[in-house]
Amino acid sequence: MKRVYNFSAGPATLPEEVLKKASEAILEYDNLGFSLIEMSHRSKPYDKINEEAEADMKKIMGLGDDYQVLFMGGGASLQFSMVPMNFLKEGMTADYINTGVWAGKAVIEAKKEGNINVIASSEDRKFCYIPKDIKCTEGAAFLHYTTNNTIYGTEYQFIPDVKVPLVADMSSDMLSRKMDFSKYSLIYAGAQKNLGPAGATIIVIKKSFLETAKDEKELPVMLSYKAHAAKKSIYNTPPVFPIFTVGLVLKWILAQGGLEEIEKANIKKSDYLYKYLDENTDFYSPTVDKDSRSRMNVTFRIVNHDLEPKFIEEAKEKGLVGMKGHRSTGGLRTSIYNAFPYEGVVKLVEFMEEFKKNNK
Amino acid sequence: MKRVYNFSAGPATLPEEVLKKASEAILEYDNLGFSLIEMSHRSKPYDKINEEAEADMKKIMGLGDDYQVLFMGGGASLQFSMVPMNFLKEGMTADYINTGVWAGKAVIEAKKEGNINVIASSEDRKFCYIPKDIKCTEGAAFLHYTTNNTIYGTEYQFIPDVKVPLVADMSSDMLSRKMDFSKYSLIYAGAQKNLGPAGATIIVIKKSFLETAKDEKELPVMLSYKAHAAKKSIYNTPPVFPIFTVGLVLKWILAQGGLEEIEKANIKKSDYLYKYLDENTDFYSPTVDKDSRSRMNVTFRIVNHDLEPKFIEEAKEKGLVGMKGHRSTGGLRTSIYNAFPYEGVVKLVEFMEEFKKNNK
Repeated sequence: MKRVYNFSAGPATLPEEVLKKASEAILEYDNLGFSLIEMSHRSKPYDKINEEAEADMKKIMGLGDDYQVLFMGGGASLQFSMVPMNFLKEGMTADYINTGVWAGKAVIEAKKEGNINVIASSEDRKFCYIPKDIKCTEGAAFLHYTTNNTIYGTEYQFIPDVKVPLVADMSSDMLSRKMDFSKYSLIYAGAQKNLGPAGATIIVIKKSFLETAKDEKELPVMLSYKAHAAKKSIYNTPPVFPIFTVGLVLKWILAQGGLEEIEKANIKKSDYLYKYLDENTDFYSPTVDKDSRSRMNVTFRIVNHDLEPKFIEEAKEKGLVGMKGHRSTGGLRTSIYNAFPYEGVVKLVEFMEEFKKNNK
Repeated sequence: MKRVYNFSAGPATLPEEVLKKASEAILEYDNLGFSLIEMSHRSKPYDKINEEAEADMKKIMGLGDDYQVLFMGGGASLQFSMVPMNFLKEGMTADYINTGVWAGKAVIEAKKEGNINVIASSEDRKFCYIPKDIKCTEGAAFLHYTTNNTIYGTEYQFIPDVKVPLVADMSSDMLSRKMDFSKYSLIYAGAQKNLGPAGATIIVIKKSFLETAKDEKELPVMLSYKAHAAKKSIYNTPPVFPIFTVGLVLKWILAQGGLEEIEKANIKKSDYLYKYLDENTDFYSPTVDKDSRSRMNVTFRIVNHDLEPKFIEEAKEKGLVGMKGHRSTGGLRTSIYNAFPYEGVVKLVEFMEEFKKNNK
């Protein structure tokens, strides 16, 4: 088959070798005489998948025994509720930063569970920047923020330096760069950007923070981190195929040389695209402040907005698909996650230059 | 490859043609130049998958516009909480029937949400039968029961005749037989038995019952049936691969001739096995009362329990796998869901006869 360059914001481009292995496992897993998706989750082969995925995740992140990795379903959206349900206890306050649609949804769900403070926001300029002045409420239960904002194309380029437990939604930039992950008490991410297919959610939790969570008896058991942690992610039947495929992606990241090499590749791709945009502001217009730009989701407009549908249509004919901006913002968005190849960005810039010449 | 006969209780045997199509879709979906699992869930091809799966489900069940089908993640275990969170309002009581481990877990979760009555139970005889005398609490919010009990091998052979809204966990026998599904207000099932791989949950809900659910503002939004229904199962990123594969299974059911033919095949398989068991009670001992036996999970013991590990081991050598009973009950369990072939049951009975001769 001829693969197109797929700039979709998620589910998104995955490594071809991952797709190949996942496809094979659907036919038969490990010469067992049945498919991966016919296999009991309470079996030795599944234990191995589950354990290796946790170990590889911690290896990539440079984390030790003081952290546990959980695999769940439900998407990051379910975490918006689970985080406050587990950690925002009676009489406490939690701090939130509002940097866009998903961060805002986390705020809405947290408000249903208890008292929160939105301590910073970039809503004043339509979320085109990352708020840098972060002062937490004294004794806050945690600070929740979104490291990368898929829709607006902004990304934190620093880790907030705060005294309260740090909780991050890393759905759209997890494992895209080196970071000191040990600064976090809880990290979560839907898999369907950098980490795998839709249907798995990854939670990385500091054990000392986990201990402070509400007991499973006080919560719907499926929403209890303690319940899932005690059963090592098989409290109930887990989403086997999505988790297996996340495991394949983790092995691919390790084979690339880990986050050091992954980050280099992501810098190369995003720099190439932003450089072109910055040199061609007569025709294209990047939407995000320079110090807040995402390496994952590059958002821009054509100065003459009316040309955007034509741009999308002609790009598609060239095998460059999935660049329509989110329905809430319009414009253009190119998502270039870990597995998106550099050649695709080169091809995009070639097309952009051609489109500019033909439509000036 | 040589396929074994896989008696696993779930995830379980799926039709080979479904595995083949699912495997192909992982490499490339519908000549689009990318994989099914790289495809945006907000795209026309995914809309088609979602819509066809709903339409096929309703067609198979003989349901019309007064029902809606939802696809979610989280498994049936999450439904244990969602049902009472949405429908058990302040001051109301809900009725539950306790027929085993999963029914019992539903009771535990419901108690966290409100007032419930366990109106019938088969705990007195270790869940080896189905309670038949069912009298609901006057004005109960709903009656919740489990149609098939995977662990104990019991199955309802009738639909409780009650005046209150009927809610059923059909995780392990959904679409295995003809039924008047219009008697139910809400049906849910984890996919990983008869319907597909782990990671998708199917909810079939009567619209008039849905209207009585709590508003999404009163609940974590991800646990609101109204929220999922309003967005036609794409409130957030759904588990694309599991749902796609459920869709393939539904098309396979239709190709078999629908539930009429499926039921015939299931009767043929389970009758063959129970007949052998009943004729060989000197050596084997079926564990369930005759009027309560499951067509899906046939549970039995060897009269001399000590022989069971040997049975499992020797069966495995013959390519008959996954027959170990649940850890809570011990013994033997053969799960013969829709996609499990008749030939596998014949092969099992042959092996059982041989094992009996060699170990009498």
